[in-house]
Amino acid sequence: MGKILTFGEIMLRLMSEDGHRLLQTNKLEATFGGGEANVAVSLANYGEDAAYLTCLPNNILGQAAINSLRYFGVDTSLILRQGERIGTYFVEKGHSQRPSTVLYDRKNSAVAMSKPDDFDWDKLFEDVGWFHFTGITPALSTNLAQTCKDALLAASRKNIMVSCDLNYRKNLWSTEDAKTTMSGLMPYVHVCIANEEDADKVLGIKAEGADVEGGNLNYEGYKSVAEELVRAYGFEHVGITLRSSIDANNNNWAGMLYDGTKSYFSRTYEIRVFDRVGGGDSFSGGLIYALKNQYEPQEAIEFAVAASCLKHSIEGDFNRVTLQEVNSLMKGNATGRVQR
Amino acid sequence: MGKILTFGEIMLRLMSEDGHRLLQTNKLEATFGGGEANVAVSLANYGEDAAYLTCLPNNILGQAAINSLRYFGVDTSLILRQGERIGTYFVEKGHSQRPSTVLYDRKNSAVAMSKPDDFDWDKLFEDVGWFHFTGITPALSTNLAQTCKDALLAASRKNIMVSCDLNYRKNLWSTEDAKTTMSGLMPYVHVCIANEEDADKVLGIKAEGADVEGGNLNYEGYKSVAEELVRAYGFEHVGITLRSSIDANNNNWAGMLYDGTKSYFSRTYEIRVFDRVGGGDSFSGGLIYALKNQYEPQEAIEFAVAASCLKHSIEGDFNRVTLQEVNSLMKGNATGRVQR
Amino acid sequence: MGKILTFGEIMLRLMSEDGHRLLQTNKLEATFGGGEANVAVSLANYGEDAAYLTCLPNNILGQAAINSLRYFGVDTSLILRQGERIGTYFVEKGHSQRPSTVLYDRKNSAVAMSKPDDFDWDKLFEDVGWFHFTGITPALSTNLAQTCKDALLAASRKNIMVSCDLNYRKNLWSTEDAKTTMSGLMPYVHVCIANEEDADKVLGIKAEGADVEGGNLNYEGYKSVAEELVRAYGFEHVGITLRSSIDANNNNWAGMLYDGTKSYFSRTYEIRVFDRVGGGDSFSGGLIYALKNQYEPQEAIEFAVAASCLKHSIEGDFNRVTLQEVNSLMKGNATGRVQR
Amino acid sequence: MGKILTFGEIMLRLMSEDGHRLLQTNKLEATFGGGEANVAVSLANYGEDAAYLTCLPNNILGQAAINSLRYFGVDTSLILRQGERIGTYFVEKGHSQRPSTVLYDRKNSAVAMSKPDDFDWDKLFEDVGWFHFTGITPALSTNLAQTCKDALLAASRKNIMVSCDLNYRKNLWSTEDAKTTMSGLMPYVHVCIANEEDADKVLGIKAEGADVEGGNLNYEGYKSVAEELVRAYGFEHVGITLRSSIDANNNNWAGMLYDGTKSYFSRTYEIRVFDRVGGGDSFSGGLIYALKNQYEPQEAIEFAVAASCLKHSIEGDFNRVTLQEVNSLMKGNATGRVQR
Amino acid sequence: MGKILTFGEIMLRLMSEDGHRLLQTNKLEATFGGGEANVAVSLANYGEDAAYLTCLPNNILGQAAINSLRYFGVDTSLILRQGERIGTYFVEKGHSQRPSTVLYDRKNSAVAMSKPDDFDWDKLFEDVGWFHFTGITPALSTNLAQTCKDALLAASRKNIMVSCDLNYRKNLWSTEDAKTTMSGLMPYVHVCIANEEDADKVLGIKAEGADVEGGNLNYEGYKSVAEELVRAYGFEHVGITLRSSIDANNNNWAGMLYDGTKSYFSRTYEIRVFDRVGGGDSFSGGLIYALKNQYEPQEAIEFAVAASCLKHSIEGDFNRVTLQEVNSLMKGNATGRVQR
Amino acid sequence: MGKILTFGEIMLRLMSEDGHRLLQTNKLEATFGGGEANVAVSLANYGEDAAYLTCLPNNILGQAAINSLRYFGVDTSLILRQGERIGTYFVEKGHSQRPSTVLYDRKNSAVAMSKPDDFDWDKLFEDVGWFHFTGITPALSTNLAQTCKDALLAASRKNIMVSCDLNYRKNLWSTEDAKTTMSGLMPYVHVCIANEEDADKVLGIKAEGADVEGGNLNYEGYKSVAEELVRAYGFEHVGITLRSSIDANNNNWAGMLYDGTKSYFSRTYEIRVFDRVGGGDSFSGGLIYALKNQYEPQEAIEFAVAASCLKHSIEGDFNRVTLQEVNSLMKGNATGRVQR
Repeated sequence: MGKILTFGEIMLRLMSEDGHRLLQTNKLEATFGGGEANVAVSLANYGEDAAYLTCLPNNILGQAAINSLRYFGVDTSLILRQGERIGTYFVEKGHSQRPSTVLYDRKNSAVAMSKPDDFDWDKLFEDVGWFHFTGITPALSTNLAQTCKDALLAASRKNIMVSCDLNYRKNLWSTEDAKTTMSGLMPYVHVCIANEEDADKVLGIKAEGADVEGGNLNYEGYKSVAEELVRAYGFEHVGITLRSSIDANNNNWAGMLYDGTKSYFSRTYEIRVFDRVGGGDSFSGGLIYALKNQYEPQEAIEFAVAASCLKHSIEGDFNRVTLQEVNSLMKGNATGRVQR
Repeated sequence: MGKILTFGEIMLRLMSEDGHRLLQTNKLEATFGGGEANVAVSLANYGEDAAYLTCLPNNILGQAAINSLRYFGVDTSLILRQGERIGTYFVEKGHSQRPSTVLYDRKNSAVAMSKPDDFDWDKLFEDVGWFHFTGITPALSTNLAQTCKDALLAASRKNIMVSCDLNYRKNLWSTEDAKTTMSGLMPYVHVCIANEEDADKVLGIKAEGADVEGGNLNYEGYKSVAEELVRAYGFEHVGITLRSSIDANNNNWAGMLYDGTKSYFSRTYEIRVFDRVGGGDSFSGGLIYALKNQYEPQEAIEFAVAASCLKHSIEGDFNRVTLQEVNSLMKGNATGRVQR
Repeated sequence: MGKILTFGEIMLRLMSEDGHRLLQTNKLEATFGGGEANVAVSLANYGEDAAYLTCLPNNILGQAAINSLRYFGVDTSLILRQGERIGTYFVEKGHSQRPSTVLYDRKNSAVAMSKPDDFDWDKLFEDVGWFHFTGITPALSTNLAQTCKDALLAASRKNIMVSCDLNYRKNLWSTEDAKTTMSGLMPYVHVCIANEEDADKVLGIKAEGADVEGGNLNYEGYKSVAEELVRAYGFEHVGITLRSSIDANNNNWAGMLYDGTKSYFSRTYEIRVFDRVGGGDSFSGGLIYALKNQYEPQEAIEFAVAASCLKHSIEGDFNRVTLQEVNSLMKGNATGRVQR
Repeated sequence: MGKILTFGEIMLRLMSEDGHRLLQTNKLEATFGGGEANVAVSLANYGEDAAYLTCLPNNILGQAAINSLRYFGVDTSLILRQGERIGTYFVEKGHSQRPSTVLYDRKNSAVAMSKPDDFDWDKLFEDVGWFHFTGITPALSTNLAQTCKDALLAASRKNIMVSCDLNYRKNLWSTEDAKTTMSGLMPYVHVCIANEEDADKVLGIKAEGADVEGGNLNYEGYKSVAEELVRAYGFEHVGITLRSSIDANNNNWAGMLYDGTKSYFSRTYEIRVFDRVGGGDSFSGGLIYALKNQYEPQEAIEFAVAASCLKHSIEGDFNRVTLQEVNSLMKGNATGRVQR
Repeated sequence: MGKILTFGEIMLRLMSEDGHRLLQTNKLEATFGGGEANVAVSLANYGEDAAYLTCLPNNILGQAAINSLRYFGVDTSLILRQGERIGTYFVEKGHSQRPSTVLYDRKNSAVAMSKPDDFDWDKLFEDVGWFHFTGITPALSTNLAQTCKDALLAASRKNIMVSCDLNYRKNLWSTEDAKTTMSGLMPYVHVCIANEEDADKVLGIKAEGADVEGGNLNYEGYKSVAEELVRAYGFEHVGITLRSSIDANNNNWAGMLYDGTKSYFSRTYEIRVFDRVGGGDSFSGGLIYALKNQYEPQEAIEFAVAASCLKHSIEGDFNRVTLQEVNSLMKGNATGRVQR
Repeated sequence: MGKILTFGEIMLRLMSEDGHRLLQTNKLEATFGGGEANVAVSLANYGEDAAYLTCLPNNILGQAAINSLRYFGVDTSLILRQGERIGTYFVEKGHSQRPSTVLYDRKNSAVAMSKPDDFDWDKLFEDVGWFHFTGITPALSTNLAQTCKDALLAASRKNIMVSCDLNYRKNLWSTEDAKTTMSGLMPYVHVCIANEEDADKVLGIKAEGADVEGGNLNYEGYKSVAEELVRAYGFEHVGITLRSSIDANNNNWAGMLYDGTKSYFSRTYEIRVFDRVGGGDSFSGGLIYALKNQYEPQEAIEFAVAASCLKHSIEGDFNRVTLQEVNSLMKGNATGRVQR
């Protein structure tokens, strides 16, 4: 059905080493990450033909970002080399009661400064069967909101499947702005992905009884969220991640898939968190893989949740796991016994 | 009410990297720490005007110790540059059933070799409103015991508030010597701070039913300890930390504040320990801050315990947290969710 | 009763740093390890006169392997410097639901290519009172299976105590081959050591009701395994490790010793795993020490399990603990409180 | 004569570790640096009362920049906490024929976005006896050029000594813009500092016969440059650094001081370069120290060159040397023999 | 003219960190390298369409080797996933009079165990315009010698340009075996590349007056070597690297190109060596680039030597430089001045 | 002729990483070293039966020091486990004009606090054929000066060869004290080893025309020093190291051996210094090896100088080289070409 194209911003990710506070020592771990890039890497790791589109400056940092994607076999040939800077974010891993923190320095990045005319979607969509973006991309600039709209219209013309992870970021826009923009894009989306808060923050649809900070989830309430989302926007599938955070080291993790008819809940994993950033993206990657390969709904949500469970054990935004490893966990081997 | 002065020994702290056994690899993490210095750093981090007094040799190690304090804004201008060596201690982080170990090489340090005449307390106490020391300082030498006495007499003359963390160290002196010396200093102390064992070891006042090694604490028994301490020495406040150690990675942590009338217990935190050394000092730092800023007793103990809870998630003796972070935890956000 | 000689393969162990996936970064931690070498190191650490026998190439890697053993005081003077390469294995530490993995590159190693005639057992056994090997050694080559047989016959002639850890490795041989070879060696063995799976895989003796992957152990079923082993091969003692794996970070760990008459179960430790590889060998090392020093059965199994409990908190194959540390844990101090 | 105030931009400096190409590995060395901050650190290290003024965002990176200055005892109390980001630059150390490279990402930094009204120079200049800035500061924005003008006028009113390092940066402005702006500031400057190229690029005054890239310097030609600078702007002193670059590891380094009457050349050092970035600033720091302390001209230029010679042996922008170390080198001990 | 395909063995390269002796510490730097892979990376970095062919086991190490090539944009789609192991080599960087050492553990690698039938050259050569291999490949096994012959015959049929770096390795074969095999392959080669020793060791053609160990090169003698090589095998071009080694840190480096008519000598670089391994391959990469893009002979040899000069400043086998960087050095900027 | 015993102090050596200034970062490289221990390691590396005697505290640091010696096969069984602390020293590597510095914290170490009665020399000297110490040992305490005298008397009784490296340390004693003590020990010494300054500082015998700081050595003047030493104390051999220091990275290095009849000068090496500390000890190790194995004088001095030349390329006090490597350099291979 053609390759998968994801579109968004990839940034230089700078993390303090060894669980230290930011700049407690003079070492930073430098990798790259970004919602849609993370999804592309997941899909390439599962053997899919995945391409990634963004804008990157023509300097050594832009090139290193591209190389980091090529490493996993992601097709980077569509990337535009323009603009002045790559966005940056600083990550400090939390521990126990101390939360992880992410500090962004992404303004005026190459992709945020791009214009709709920079993108020729009919050409970019050649051989593309699936298009994925997140709510971060239209939040970066008015131009990018328009560019997303252009992309969706082109995708619609070409019958390309579209998935969107709502991914609300409060430091990028208000819930009002998010709702205005996103509700205009949703009608072109087939698969809507959200976490416990997104549907409320982005589209104003709320799970009753949810208490995200408190660590307790009203799993059943999410059924009605999904139903309402489908009623409002006509999604074919709604995938929701369900995280309850005990502390920075311990999270419970599960997911729900609604196929327009029924809600399927996955197994819940008690996760010892190694690196939580990118966890939602690895769910998207798993869900897109499973839906594209026509898994049954229960299998699909189990695959997406097992994939993203494993991501929490891996440093960096990218989910460095194989299909075999996800399958092995899905089939129930979660005891972590040594594999020789 | 003037600045806060803390007085004691700061040492070079050498820790094996990455949780390894000492000298398992050829790398040591070199930082600085010491009970009263740790308190000064906490207070400077909360925005207080904090100064630290000690003796340090006039070499690169002494200078580095000073620099490490100036980094946090601690006033180091009172420090005496004299003596031949800085004390050293080696830390090996425990894991699971293997305990953390601390090996001291602190004999003959600059401060331990100092003489009472080296300190002109009337001058040192200019602009000082609060004086803090721990039971470690008088334990280092007979001279230092006398110096502490001199300091307390001067503080008394100047109506300076005095806090003392009993901090018994069995490799520095016997319980008999501790009791003799410390009971002579206590009458000048307004705020007495202790852990589960100190009151017994230093002053012979014991919580009945306590079983420190076994991980079970008779919280109620500490009320009577506090009451007895106040009866014996006339303290205005008694703060006690309550740790139950499940294993080297998991501790439960709480505190109690007795204000002469009533005992206030804090919330209990289930802590995943990152670095436990300096935990008690961060409690002192929090409690001094709260009392100096006239928090209500319940708020004060919650602040001190939240502050020290966070310290357990941070490497090194110093509690690298802001007022905002302590307040955020105090207000109940203990789930460690990512802050973006 | 003479020194302890262990015989087998020591390999270069290459582990990804900081819990990363293999080659996620460009750093590998290089140490050495191997079942019998690990046992020799344990015994030397307890003060025993321990020697280790293997073949190592006459290059810098072979020399470094020897040095790594001499570091602990293991006698390496019997080691044959011959052959072309040292075996290598790559370790990736698991986390949460992601298992640890071990990838071997050990074919054609110096010891695997050795011939029975390379070993003059009557000479090698001078001053030896105890001989230890594992099921890995005869699995490495037909020649080594014969060499083991030669060794056992010589040991028998010289009344040397023999212990064997069955240690089944499915990538070295089939259960059929293992059974054929091992059942021919067992009659010369006095102390048989096994984990939950070995007796079944190597000798076809199975604990009913065991569910190794599921994390639940039928402890009682192991009694009959031990009894049957003794019936079949006349062992004086059978030691069995009992691991239930909750996830890669959390294991429950205990052991059983059968002395031909009765089964003694140890206390169970809830372990936060730091490095699991070498855990079984540290049990063997502890058990051999205890039996050689004629501990009572309950004490012996407690010592072996406490020793191996501590190993799980230490990086690398070698169990870097002293007799004092094992004794301290055995006596019940498992709370991990700081030792100053 | 009062403290020394320097004013400019401090940035987060990110350098690839171990001489690797940028992002060749995933580790970056994170420190802070910037022309005027580097000068303040030098002066504080020599025991001067040095303060630094800039704008920094109210986040963890801004705080860490401040802490890095406090570490050396620089007074940071004047720094404005405003703006959104701290500028960043990436450093890759050169080797042999491969040059070092510096990639800036400094646009829209807190100080570049500041407005002239943010600075109350009469207040800022309390207790100030010397003011230092570089040509980088006015190049950052039109506002900052005005702010510099305001500062110089205030300094003039208060009879504050002013030094300026021309420091031309071609990626910040054209030589035309530089000349327009800088020639308006120069009349208020007492000490002008430049490298081999600056006088030409910034003020259009050129040393004949210079061949900077070729590694040969026409030392004598710099006399006429200095004379012409003094004629044009009335400087009291002109200090010029003279670098000839053999390759990235080997530089010859000297300096010249013109006091309006005569030119004094320093000894030339054959330097093995450890880290070249910040070399010019360490010359400024040394020269300001020497002139402020009324060294004779020959001594002054020897001090400045010895100080900056040592900087080339130290990693990071800051010159971590003491007065004693500079004096020792000045007095001729350049053989690098071990000091015990 | 179609893409460039290189064929050979890529290995896991394990180097002691920080210039230490092998296993002096427990850290190894793990990268990948191999003569022909190194050439492919150089060419991809210059913007050429480069593919690499080898066999790699279907495990995490084989995958990581592929990823390390994809990182640079090398086409790895032709690589055969078969065999049991990837070859390994250990590198210890020399210093001063202590030479660098390379210890190989490459026997029985996937590519060494491959069979001629594994390779369908007519298919592999689709779209290929240039084929490159080195003398290492046929030295690895008799099968590979045959496979190389097959490749050359196919290349000949398809009019593909062929280059070969003689690259004699004394631990792989004798000079007699090398001569027998290589002289049978040379008639199909258009561009022959050699260092100071290869022509003699591999083909028995010697530069008179050469004294490789002594550090003095009879540059003129290499002209006759090239002439004789062309006479014997009909090469279109002969490229020879000319290294004189002062010590492990200092090498002089130049090259010569003979185009059948005339010998062109490059400029000589005095190199401070950062990592010497892969230096010859970077010369091949540069020469192939220059010849493929029809540089004039003098320009071609200057390009190849400048490219390989830069390689000596970069860690790892791969030459991480851009076309712009090579051109900049070629044009004479060898002083290593900071590029801002 | 029996084993070689060396006697002195081994210390914990803490060096800033990566050529940084001490405590510039938070990492220290922890190894062990000390004059006589370094000699023992050299000798063990050459295959000699070498033992080392000192006192070490019964803690983890003392044990690690022992382990670090066992690693090389040094016999540590004579070491006394007593005393409270191990001496420590901090090393900062110099660069260019910045000298290396060594900061000692060795007072009150276990060996410095030892008493003459702690050593039973008749027993310690069993099987000993050669005894080596340095001028550091008697300088550590009056007790140790007596202990050295006791040792020499016992050695004399047993006809044990004695070598002594004068090794003057100005921070341990005055030249007057050194002369008084050392001149009483010299009559029992057979092989006297010194650097350019020692004979003057310790025994008052000076090479005329020497200018140690200036980098120029009057090689011929050392002949008369050696002759005078022999006249005064009757040494059989005098070995003198000749270092001229260009800068911290570049030293010229040679040696002279006087056999009572004639002076033999070695080749001079132009050394790029990696780590200079321990250089003199590696000369002693080489010279003792050569004399014990009855090398001809010219060969002996060449061996000692080649051995110590190589030491300068190796991090840490210990000379990690084999006999083969020293021989290879002696035979003239000093070009540092890659050894494959």
